[in-house]
Order: sequence, then structure tokens, then C-alpha cells
Amino acid sequence: MTTLSRLAATIQARKGADPESSWTAKLLSKGPEKCAEKFGEEAVEAIIEAVKGDRAKLTAEAADVLYHLLVMLAARDVTLDEVLDELDRREGTSGLAEKAARG
Amino acid sequence: MTTLSRLAATIQARKGADPESSWTAKLLSKGPEKCAEKFGEEAVEAIIEAVKGDRAKLTAEAADVLYHLLVMLAARDVTLDEVLDELDRREGTSGLAEKAARG
Amino acid sequence: MTTLSRLAATIQARKGADPESSWTAKLLSKGPEKCAEKFGEEAVEAIIEAVKGDRAKLTAEAADVLYHLLVMLAARDVTLDEVLDELDRREGTSGLAEKAARG
Amino acid sequence: MTTLSRLAATIQARKGADPESSWTAKLLSKGPEKCAEKFGEEAVEAIIEAVKGDRAKLTAEAADVLYHLLVMLAARDVTLDEVLDELDRREGTSGLAEKAARG
Repeated sequence: MTTLSRLAATIQARKGADPESSWTAKLLSKGPEKCAEKFGEEAVEAIIEAVKGDRAKLTAEAADVLYHLLVMLAARDVTLDEVLDELDRREGTSGLAEKAARG
Repeated sequence: MTTLSRLAATIQARKGADPESSWTAKLLSKGPEKCAEKFGEEAVEAIIEAVKGDRAKLTAEAADVLYHLLVMLAARDVTLDEVLDELDRREGTSGLAEKAARG
Repeated sequence: MTTLSRLAATIQARKGADPESSWTAKLLSKGPEKCAEKFGEEAVEAIIEAVKGDRAKLTAEAADVLYHLLVMLAARDVTLDEVLDELDRREGTSGLAEKAARG
Repeated sequence: MTTLSRLAATIQARKGADPESSWTAKLLSKGPEKCAEKFGEEAVEAIIEAVKGDRAKLTAEAADVLYHLLVMLAARDVTLDEVLDELDRREGTSGLAEKAARG
């Protein structure tokens, strides 16, 4: 199982758990808008580090973005697999389009 | 190879390619700030769909977020593996912390 | 009449106008979510220029932020005066708090 | 003097002041990136309220956006007047363009 799938499963399992049991459970108990707000904060921090060009901080902020993206998705019952399927589908389309373009 | 690793490899391969050869190559050729700007736009769109609660649109926007996060990272030569390692490291710490807390 | 009040009045007047009559009318006709999305894009651009430290570009992006903030507010029938009243109220409170703190 | 000009002057006066003397002085002492981050957080919160359609909360968040925009500008020594001049200039251009279009 990959890192991201395992993280997604952990987050999913915290949904509905006692808010006092973990930070993730507490965040999810506050609802989708609060989860979206936290995701937005992390996205802003990642943007700032990308512009500054600090690789180590950008790596850490990108990890925060992935975590909070998964929490926001869990808050709306969207699974990581659904998002990855969407990426696969696009890759397929784009692969076919490129082949068609090459003739 | 997972969907995300394959996507990251594809994006990485586009770095330095002829900007006319693909959309990704064109975006990367514009530099990290432009890549960060596009990531920010997609993050905002994902936030809006999360608040509205449209699962299908949120899935599509989350896919856009992942793609543009990988492009922004590639623009600064940060790899997906480095970000996943960071998540693994945190999981380890948090796992240990939880065990310690349970005694 | 100040620049911002005049701009707010102009934007307000475009609400409900023929979408083809102006760019503002067209944006407002797309609804609050689209106006919020555009505001978000401009906020991201302003953040990027603030980090880069380009004063001229930051000035231009800040102007975009103000314009799109007013459009987003108009989309929800919030007036500039209501927002300025809120700022006045806070200033009053904070002024009193400072006086109290000074004894 | 308008609310916004007065607020901008207050914020400007806090620049270089003892960080312990006020919240604004403390924020400015942390540098432009931190000010940009806070502005970004408030922008995200305003977007969320605009999508939800809560007029009172949107009004409060818009006030936060204006305050943090002015702090971010002060951190880079951009004045409110410079931003308003930019808006005036655009209005002039757009006014002329509309007159020209009408013939």
C-alpha cells in the first residue's frame, strides 16, 4: 500500500471518531468549510515557499498540502482512488490525443 | 508504478523540453512563479467545490490540484518521493507519539 | 466621492445589466462562485508579487484585488460602506482598548 | 480623512515600532512573507463566506481582507494612495474607451 493510500485510509478512519481522539478527528468534526479553510492556508504557504525557492520548506509545505487535501476530500466523502482514477482517465485521453497527433 | 509517480515522472520529463511540445512543457518554461500561480488558482477552485459540496466537481478539481502541485514541485526540482518521504517520517513520529501516549 | 466608493457604485450599477455591456456585468452574471474564484486568483497573484518584492507589480495586483473584492461583495449584495463601517467599529474598539490599557 | 486612509496611516505608523506595542507592529516585524501569508488566509476565508452566502460573515471577512492587504502593502512600502491612483488611471482609460466606443 502506498504512503498516500495509507494516509487516506487513516484519515477516512478518523471520520466520525471522537474529536478528542486525534487532530484529524477534531478537524473533520468541524465540517467541510473548516477543512477547506485549512487546505487553503497550506496552499498559500506552499505557494510562498515555491516563490522563495526554499526546497526543504517547499517539501514540507507540499506534504501539508497533500494531507489537508485528503482531509478536505474525506469531509465530502471523496476518496483518493476517485481522484487518481480521474488522473488516469485524463492521462489515457491525453496519451491517445498525442498518438493521434503523431499520426 | 502508481498513477501519481507516473504523472510526476511525465512532468519531470517535460522540464527543459520544447515549450511547444506540450502544455506542461510550456507551463514549466514560464518559471516557478507562474507554476505557483496556476497551483493557487486550482486550489481556490477546489476550495469552492468543497464548500458547495459537489462531489464530481470536487474530484475533478482535486485532480487539477495534484497535477499543478507536481508541476510546481518540478519547477523547483522537488520530487514527489521527497514529499512522500516527509509524510512517511511524520506518520512514523505520530505513530510513536500515539504509542507513547497510550503507554 | 472617493475612488473606491465611485468604483463600488460603478460595479453595483453593472449588476443586472446586459452581460455583453461590460466585463463587470459579464462577471457578475456568472454568479458569486465565479466572482469569488476571480478574487482568489488575484489574491494569489498579489501574494506572489509581495513575496518577490516588485513594488510596481504589487501595486497593480493590489488594485486588481480591490476591484475583484468589490465585485465579489456586489455579487452577495454587501456594500463597501458596510465593510468600512465594520473597520470603523473595530478601530473604535481597539482605540478604547488601547486607552484602557494605558490607564 | 476616509476610514481606509486612516487605517493605512495607522498601519504605516506601526512599521518599525516595538513588536510588543501592537498586533500590527508584531506582524510587520515578521516580514513581508508572513504578512502575505496572513493576507492569503483572510482571502480564503472571504471566498468561503462568499460561496456560503452569509452576508454578515462576508462583511467581517472583507474587513479582514482590507486590513491584511494594507499590512502586506506596508511591508513592501507600497501606499494605499499608489493603489488608488492605479485604480483611477484604469477608470480614466476605461472611461475614455467607453466614450470612444460610443463614438
